[in-house]
Amino acid sequence: MHSVNASVITIGDELLIGQTIDTNSAFIARELTRIGISVRRMVTVGDDWQAIRHVLDEESRDADVIIITGGLGPTSDDITKPLLAQYFGGRLVEDEQVLAHIRYLFEHVYRRPGPLLERNRRQAEVPDNCTVLMNTRGTAPGMLFRKEGKMFFSLPGVPYEMQDLLTRQVVPLLKNELPLPIIVQQTLLTVGVGESVLAEKVSDWEARLPNHMKLAYLPHFGTVRLRLTSNGNEKNGLEEEMEARFAELKELVAEWLVADEDITLSQAVAVLLKSKKQTVGTAESCTGGYLAHLLSRDPGSSSNFKGSIVSYDNQVKIDVLGVSPQTLETEGAVSETTVRQMAAGALKRLGTDFVVATSGIMGPDGGTERKAVGLVWIAVGDRAGIEAKEFHFRFDRSRNIEQTSIAALNMLRKRIVSQQRG
Amino acid sequence: MHSVNASVITIGDELLIGQTIDTNSAFIARELTRIGISVRRMVTVGDDWQAIRHVLDEESRDADVIIITGGLGPTSDDITKPLLAQYFGGRLVEDEQVLAHIRYLFEHVYRRPGPLLERNRRQAEVPDNCTVLMNTRGTAPGMLFRKEGKMFFSLPGVPYEMQDLLTRQVVPLLKNELPLPIIVQQTLLTVGVGESVLAEKVSDWEARLPNHMKLAYLPHFGTVRLRLTSNGNEKNGLEEEMEARFAELKELVAEWLVADEDITLSQAVAVLLKSKKQTVGTAESCTGGYLAHLLSRDPGSSSNFKGSIVSYDNQVKIDVLGVSPQTLETEGAVSETTVRQMAAGALKRLGTDFVVATSGIMGPDGGTERKAVGLVWIAVGDRAGIEAKEFHFRFDRSRNIEQTSIAALNMLRKRIVSQQRG
Repeated sequence: MHSVNASVITIGDELLIGQTIDTNSAFIARELTRIGISVRRMVTVGDDWQAIRHVLDEESRDADVIIITGGLGPTSDDITKPLLAQYFGGRLVEDEQVLAHIRYLFEHVYRRPGPLLERNRRQAEVPDNCTVLMNTRGTAPGMLFRKEGKMFFSLPGVPYEMQDLLTRQVVPLLKNELPLPIIVQQTLLTVGVGESVLAEKVSDWEARLPNHMKLAYLPHFGTVRLRLTSNGNEKNGLEEEMEARFAELKELVAEWLVADEDITLSQAVAVLLKSKKQTVGTAESCTGGYLAHLLSRDPGSSSNFKGSIVSYDNQVKIDVLGVSPQTLETEGAVSETTVRQMAAGALKRLGTDFVVATSGIMGPDGGTERKAVGLVWIAVGDRAGIEAKEFHFRFDRSRNIEQTSIAALNMLRKRIVSQQRG
Repeated sequence: MHSVNASVITIGDELLIGQTIDTNSAFIARELTRIGISVRRMVTVGDDWQAIRHVLDEESRDADVIIITGGLGPTSDDITKPLLAQYFGGRLVEDEQVLAHIRYLFEHVYRRPGPLLERNRRQAEVPDNCTVLMNTRGTAPGMLFRKEGKMFFSLPGVPYEMQDLLTRQVVPLLKNELPLPIIVQQTLLTVGVGESVLAEKVSDWEARLPNHMKLAYLPHFGTVRLRLTSNGNEKNGLEEEMEARFAELKELVAEWLVADEDITLSQAVAVLLKSKKQTVGTAESCTGGYLAHLLSRDPGSSSNFKGSIVSYDNQVKIDVLGVSPQTLETEGAVSETTVRQMAAGALKRLGTDFVVATSGIMGPDGGTERKAVGLVWIAVGDRAGIEAKEFHFRFDRSRNIEQTSIAALNMLRKRIVSQQRG
């Protein structure tokens, strides 16, 4: 079977000046990979007629599917749509269904009744040689063009709108029309180990994998996910083979294994807590609420996350968490005794089964000779007691906040596991 | 003067399967734009010999500067370095200074003494026809190749390492060697207005801008930054002209203007607070600590951010913030009375000059017929009183958390401004 190849083209001057980070290409690549389409190239160009023509010529040479995002907003210079019309040999016409949808959005969703601005009305214009893909989340419609057996999709650049169009219209169309392989994937999550140590550990095993199986390393702030992907034409054989190989992989990395599914560390914590109907809260100094955010951002987190005391200021540590002023004076806010008292205070205040507390120096300022930037104390506690640990990070402020949160979640996870085992 | 053009090439299979979002290209583009280099294309390819050769040929046709990131890590398949050596006509040799640096990192920074793994040792190999750029933050060195008057930089893919190499070595080299224009930029921040309304408001003015001045719209979750850029050969004329045009722009968007510099909304709040040595705290339900994170993530935030009570659970609202159980029962957690009581409780508990409180339904579950997903109540308060407002968002969970936080920060900002005016 010929493998189906894709190119992703992103259009926008704001990307070329670095003002916007392109998250669309990764989202598109993930969805296409999932259905067995190989993304071979991703290209970003500006709102420029020649550059867009050139990239369309170039990318359609080797790719079967070309996905284009951006260049359709009300403030772009209206280049992309007329260009696509011309490129595929058509002309712009106003689409009634799209116009009605735009009017509806302005009246009922954006609550800006009255006549449409000319630039918004023009969003209803589409090349007469495309199939319109209705954008339920915004004003710019998606478009499908066909040329020489290849499919070209033009989608809006707003991620929220693009994602809906891609998953609900583009992907089903592709699955329906193209001869795609069966893809089987399994992912596991490790914490507390680097990419090179993992690679060394699994290298012999990896070398013996059959050609149709690939292992990917996906590192992210102190966690590394390992994803095993297999593809072929028959589902059954693939799945059994995957089960066997994935079991071997889990065995190899057992000492760092957190989850044998594609979830985050905070989701792994939530799974543990939910299994015993237990709850958690945080007492945060240096992480400033970020740990609470990680524990509350997923749907359904209210069943296990109860709340936090963010005691950035020492007075809040004293007043709300009951940390002793003497401790703060003699040992300082970044100390074992302080995080232990923070954890004890949070257990009492929040009434949760578990708590985790953080205090550290995130930088760039605030370091001293005895306590350098990157020094962090973390405590976890429950009715049975409190344990604390010292960490040294060596990154910049925002990475230190991320790393501290990951380390805290991992200490919390280990504590929950050991307590649940009893 | 010939304008200097650049292409950014990103290498990595993990990008093509959508597992990693490429933040490097935007960072590089921002730094190059700042010094007057125009990025014309960004291309991502996999760890594949033919694909990398092809992209090097292609991108060096029109660009003067080619920046390559990725493909140098210990688990990549060792393609990029041998390929670069061959492409530029050299061979791989072990670099003593790089090897010594790698040994140092493993012993003293990563604290993994003992013999180096073969894959780590190989990171000291570099093509003998490049200039080595020492990577102080990691093991993979940067490299500079020259060919037919063009400069090719190969940098590691880890953002933290790449950023340091780019700003401290690549940018100074480029500024030193290339005939770059003078760039003058001014940025302002608006909140509470859409891109199309702004574009309509400034369109006549924008049309009259001289050719060397450009306006960019940079929308991000309910805020839009407007950046005016000008370039030329003489600094003086440019700066006066910029002052005049920027003043006109500020006038045009005055009703939504939050800051006339390139800062975030939370930084604008911090500037206001610092000017009067005032403090803020938060009481969060639906934002789950994210608002606290926004107020604490910038350096120096401890002078104005004191802390938060994240009361995700109703019991925490009652116990820590003093919300009335009757109110929760009769009006519910997402109600005007509840957020007002949360704000009052936080003022008392945290002892800050200002507080902001949030309660809402972020989705995807939890909506009812009377209270739909996206309904949010926000209150801001100080010694003089408390005000509350209802919002309706219509996005998915993570966007609702972002939008709620932006709306809360903007209500807070307005309150601070009006109170400071007295």
